[in-house]
Amino acid sequence: METNIKFNYPSSEKVYLSGKLYPEIKVGMRKVSLTPTIIVEGGERRVEPNDPVYVYDTSGPYSDPNVEIDLEKGLPKLRQSWIDSRKEGETQMYFAKQGVITQEMEYVAIRENMNCEELGIKTHITPAFVCKEIAEGRAVIPANRKHPESEPMIIGTNFLVKINTNIGNSATTSGMQEEVEKAVWSCKWGGDTLMDLSTGNDIHETREWILRNCPVPVGTVPMYQAFEKVNGKAEDLTWEIFRDTLIEQCEQGVDYFTIHCGIRLQNIHLADTRLTGIVSRGGSIISKWCKVHQKESFLYEHFDDICDICAKYDVAISLGDGLRPGSTYDANDAAQFAELDTMGELVERAWAKNVQAFIEGPGHVPMHKIKENMERQIEKCHGAPFYTLGPLVTDIAPAYDHITSAIGAAMIGWYGTAMLCYVTPKEHLALPEKEDVRIGVVTYKIAAHAADLAKGHPGATIRDNALSKARYDFRWKDQFNLALDPERALEYYKSSNNVDANYCTMCGPNFCAARISHSLKSCQEGK
Amino acid sequence: METNIKFNYPSSEKVYLSGKLYPEIKVGMRKVSLTPTIIVEGGERRVEPNDPVYVYDTSGPYSDPNVEIDLEKGLPKLRQSWIDSRKEGETQMYFAKQGVITQEMEYVAIRENMNCEELGIKTHITPAFVCKEIAEGRAVIPANRKHPESEPMIIGTNFLVKINTNIGNSATTSGMQEEVEKAVWSCKWGGDTLMDLSTGNDIHETREWILRNCPVPVGTVPMYQAFEKVNGKAEDLTWEIFRDTLIEQCEQGVDYFTIHCGIRLQNIHLADTRLTGIVSRGGSIISKWCKVHQKESFLYEHFDDICDICAKYDVAISLGDGLRPGSTYDANDAAQFAELDTMGELVERAWAKNVQAFIEGPGHVPMHKIKENMERQIEKCHGAPFYTLGPLVTDIAPAYDHITSAIGAAMIGWYGTAMLCYVTPKEHLALPEKEDVRIGVVTYKIAAHAADLAKGHPGATIRDNALSKARYDFRWKDQFNLALDPERALEYYKSSNNVDANYCTMCGPNFCAARISHSLKSCQEGK
Repeated sequence: METNIKFNYPSSEKVYLSGKLYPEIKVGMRKVSLTPTIIVEGGERRVEPNDPVYVYDTSGPYSDPNVEIDLEKGLPKLRQSWIDSRKEGETQMYFAKQGVITQEMEYVAIRENMNCEELGIKTHITPAFVCKEIAEGRAVIPANRKHPESEPMIIGTNFLVKINTNIGNSATTSGMQEEVEKAVWSCKWGGDTLMDLSTGNDIHETREWILRNCPVPVGTVPMYQAFEKVNGKAEDLTWEIFRDTLIEQCEQGVDYFTIHCGIRLQNIHLADTRLTGIVSRGGSIISKWCKVHQKESFLYEHFDDICDICAKYDVAISLGDGLRPGSTYDANDAAQFAELDTMGELVERAWAKNVQAFIEGPGHVPMHKIKENMERQIEKCHGAPFYTLGPLVTDIAPAYDHITSAIGAAMIGWYGTAMLCYVTPKEHLALPEKEDVRIGVVTYKIAAHAADLAKGHPGATIRDNALSKARYDFRWKDQFNLALDPERALEYYKSSNNVDANYCTMCGPNFCAARISHSLKSCQEGK
Repeated sequence: METNIKFNYPSSEKVYLSGKLYPEIKVGMRKVSLTPTIIVEGGERRVEPNDPVYVYDTSGPYSDPNVEIDLEKGLPKLRQSWIDSRKEGETQMYFAKQGVITQEMEYVAIRENMNCEELGIKTHITPAFVCKEIAEGRAVIPANRKHPESEPMIIGTNFLVKINTNIGNSATTSGMQEEVEKAVWSCKWGGDTLMDLSTGNDIHETREWILRNCPVPVGTVPMYQAFEKVNGKAEDLTWEIFRDTLIEQCEQGVDYFTIHCGIRLQNIHLADTRLTGIVSRGGSIISKWCKVHQKESFLYEHFDDICDICAKYDVAISLGDGLRPGSTYDANDAAQFAELDTMGELVERAWAKNVQAFIEGPGHVPMHKIKENMERQIEKCHGAPFYTLGPLVTDIAPAYDHITSAIGAAMIGWYGTAMLCYVTPKEHLALPEKEDVRIGVVTYKIAAHAADLAKGHPGATIRDNALSKARYDFRWKDQFNLALDPERALEYYKSSNNVDANYCTMCGPNFCAARISHSLKSCQEGK
């Protein structure tokens, strides 16, 4: 395995902002330097500098030239000393309810605001606001005590919209090295959290490599490992096997668990009349267990026990939507909404034990049915953060489902969803490879950022405006450097252009609207 | 040049539906045959057939094995005899206002409905309804008398959402053969209309090749050719040069003209405070003319003359938005809306002369400002069809602007936009090549179809549901054959799978939710 991975963003520098409550906090950001605007008017040439743009940075130490990376040693343990000062069971929510602002809370407040303060942009995101949002369950900082390598980030409707990346092998595909590379690659392109959905061999060891080298929170679906332990026979699952799996993963440092506790025996039949049944793997497994045994799910029955385990490590619970629709036909049906009601009950029980929690959502939903999902979720789940997969707004485009789902994701993000689970071009067809991860992440950064713009998040327009200005100024390199994917933008441009020209092959020298538009300024009246 | 191009869609057959008013009308469609569903229950094996799915088909004779294609001869002249029975100046709107249903009107009614009648699905789209929509200006059938090769299609908010493809060379890029190939390629993937935006040499000849071989309506921006005639000096343009260019293109068979008549001298200064000025090529050229001469635009002054020319051939006018925003920062500003007001005035003048017309729209608009665009357009432009470019909902993703714009396009399509102008991954970076055209078209078919679903267009769900069922049944080939891009879906799937397996590498044999979900049916109570 190559053990030294480093990222280099063009014209960018890794900078750190410090805390005020906790001066030892150093929040990493990417500072993109821009070239000046050259104005030629009336034969005179003026040079106007352009401010650097600060970009939210998920790449962790991989983009810091001063940190030595060694995948075998793992990343530096950023949060270790903070954690050491706390007792087991003291979760972020525990502190928040007492009005105690933790290091993680100040960290995320700084991170969300970037350099807004310096720019004179007012924002609502103070450490105290973060604390209040966590206390009231509207936001989550997934941060297992056993994953001190991860940089704190926050998931909540009143913060920047986040994206999650799924990776993981299956019994028939890729190995450990590839998965670690995909994990780090996801962080490079902007993934805010990472789910390891491995179902094949070596689940434990793959996860260990990922966790020790991952600067973002890691989620799993513990049922997958439990299911491997019973050799894929759902009916052989027991609470004890599941519980031991949870503890094993808590000890390793997983930051949040997707658990399909919302499926109840009495509701499973609601999926019988569906076009596409149950399409959640965890949901289908626990449904099978319930039907074979004709018993209430042990995930539901032992929910309080699950919370006790999670509270000990401060692992967040992502209430999995096992009955999410698998086709636009099944969207917003009785099965889906029955499960949502149960989730609303469970999230309050999690909060009672100071366990941070969020709610998973669909899936496949045509545009006109998206808003109902968000409104119902807010109402039934008392403002807990929503975390949706897409949704895909049509089913006719396999190989382009990153796009069908980005449409739904942008919309539901605008309506209030806190985190969007990415979809790659391979969705429904094959497991994603590195290039698919890149496309999926960039596509979802688009959806999340479009939602931030529409929500009016403070400072969200800075990067757009800087890029637009660079484009109008023919500062091509600045335009690429500010892009979500500078490498691809440059590659496409270079395919037919000279980087230093003040026109491009799209219009040729005469037809450039921007050039003509610039020249309007020098048209004097009557001349 | 290769002169014989043919398309082959998998498991598909070209079928024709006939008219009732005009039995000689033959409307081509693609009929996708499906394999049966195999149900195994309690050891018994049942076979249930699946109905074929009819797909709206823009590929014209290229997908008909019985038509011989020769690019040098051009396509068969489908509409010639219909046109021969009419006088010059008798436009579709002229007939519609008198309640006369033309062949084109019945053709589009059949085309929009596919096989809904056979399936027992009620639809509002009758020939009489088409006639009424055309008469009242809410829909357009672009169909120049001199382009008899094109298959009639309709653009209006009460019909399927359409997409337009832009192709065309510039002074520094591709040649004629490539442009004709791109044109036909666009029709293969689903482009409903095609704009030839060539600005380089051989404009006339390139256009001739495209028109004679294009089964969909062709649009142009005549200003581009006029501008070449004055060697790229805006101030040297005259009404006469422009008029002659219009007539030349009318005679060739262009079906609709984008003309930036909505720019008025008094409004140009409104763009002065913009971040990105004027980004429309036609808009910047005519603005420069106005400013240099300090005169009202000759496009505005001669609008009635333009209409007279268009009426003679039944060329539709696409009122170009020369002041569309070129960045999210400039969205919905005074310049943009002042032009929209002028367009509302002009569209009524076009209608008075029986000229069909539609209105172009932005551009770059963040999600929360999209709806205002649609509502204002309906109000100010009296229900004339809206034709938008995207809009792009963020500016930070060059190389992915097909996606940033598909988000806005899907939304504005749902709100009522009749036609969406595609954007390719190369937008802002380079001219699209064949593969970019394919990705752009498929991406926009997604946006348009998502809008049809959300609007509840009759029959829009048929293909989605058939594909979803195929997916749940493990009928992989049916799933691919029903996809917008069957080739790409198959290619991704094959990258790691065996087409005949009843599980895939995403989950492996044990973790397949669909498989477990199917097995739930055989779980008897207590067993």
